[in-house]
Amino acid sequence: MTEQKKSGGRPRDAEAAGAIKSATLKLLREHGYAKVTIAAIANEANVARQTLYNRWNTKADLVLDAIFEETGHYAAAPTDDPNLTCQLQLERFLMQIFAHLSESGAPIRALIAAAQDDDAFRDVFKTKFVKPREKMVTDLLKRAQNKGEIAQGRDISMLSIFVHGAFWYALLGGDPVDDDLAKSIVGEVFHPAQT
Amino acid sequence: MTEQKKSGGRPRDAEAAGAIKSATLKLLREHGYAKVTIAAIANEANVARQTLYNRWNTKADLVLDAIFEETGHYAAAPTDDPNLTCQLQLERFLMQIFAHLSESGAPIRALIAAAQDDDAFRDVFKTKFVKPREKMVTDLLKRAQNKGEIAQGRDISMLSIFVHGAFWYALLGGDPVDDDLAKSIVGEVFHPAQT
Repeated sequence: MTEQKKSGGRPRDAEAAGAIKSATLKLLREHGYAKVTIAAIANEANVARQTLYNRWNTKADLVLDAIFEETGHYAAAPTDDPNLTCQLQLERFLMQIFAHLSESGAPIRALIAAAQDDDAFRDVFKTKFVKPREKMVTDLLKRAQNKGEIAQGRDISMLSIFVHGAFWYALLGGDPVDDDLAKSIVGEVFHPAQT
Repeated sequence: MTEQKKSGGRPRDAEAAGAIKSATLKLLREHGYAKVTIAAIANEANVARQTLYNRWNTKADLVLDAIFEETGHYAAAPTDDPNLTCQLQLERFLMQIFAHLSESGAPIRALIAAAQDDDAFRDVFKTKFVKPREKMVTDLLKRAQNKGEIAQGRDISMLSIFVHGAFWYALLGGDPVDDDLAKSIVGEVFHPAQT
């Protein structure tokens, strides 16, 4: 990485936060989670390390925040589209997420890994990131159940866990996370053959 | 940890391997993956570090091997029991695994985490550990399908991934991995309500 001159003055804190998060994502993609340091992020964002520590306690917290903001763009909660079945809505939602993960899944994998070594971080990761995303799928499946696309007796919470579990399992195990996976998951969740 | 005298002579290599694996599991439970060192394991097992490096290249390899051997005792492939439904066989199989994971899940979590930082290790972990375990469940579900407990049209591979994904997701996310989870997973896999 090239050294950047910091003589041009430092942006104010709020602006700095945006620059820091962009720098974090850029370096994560280029070097992977393990090799990214707070110092490199500060340098890339052209801010003092203290500016960074004023806002985030650890690298994991910063990475979580940066990814959290980014996922807002590609994985916002799907609003109900009355022209599409819920099945198709879920399929499209997952395909969008999977396309992103195929390219940029490493930071998410690294966050899940980091959470295993640090109970406090795991709680934050779970509360801020995992559970809100699980709820998006649960809500969509509930709508499907209300519309009769999924039978009343089925366990929506468990189906939502099946959806997330399947793609965590593939992502962490190094299996493809792609359109085929999205279709297989959704197909089995919505239309099991009848016994 | 107390220093142990090594003057009593060293067991031969094959015996040493057993002692090393036991020591590895003991230290993992006491201190967690991140804090266990090769030196501490060698000391606990009363062997020279070189004995250990003769057989395993890295801590991750050793931990994988130790856990692999241990899981053989509590998670051997379930043989078909004609007196039990496949549903009940799967439920019992998962309950046995979950009971163990609730107590000693930390090393498995640590292995999954370690696999995210190291592609070569992830391949070994996947080939030696993850996929054989996935196959145990897939085989059981196929038997269930052959017996008519699961309908012909259902996607057995995906159901097997749902089973594993659900408990990886709970384990890594810090949710309970217990009898209730086993029952919920199996209940939803075997008996979805009819649409």
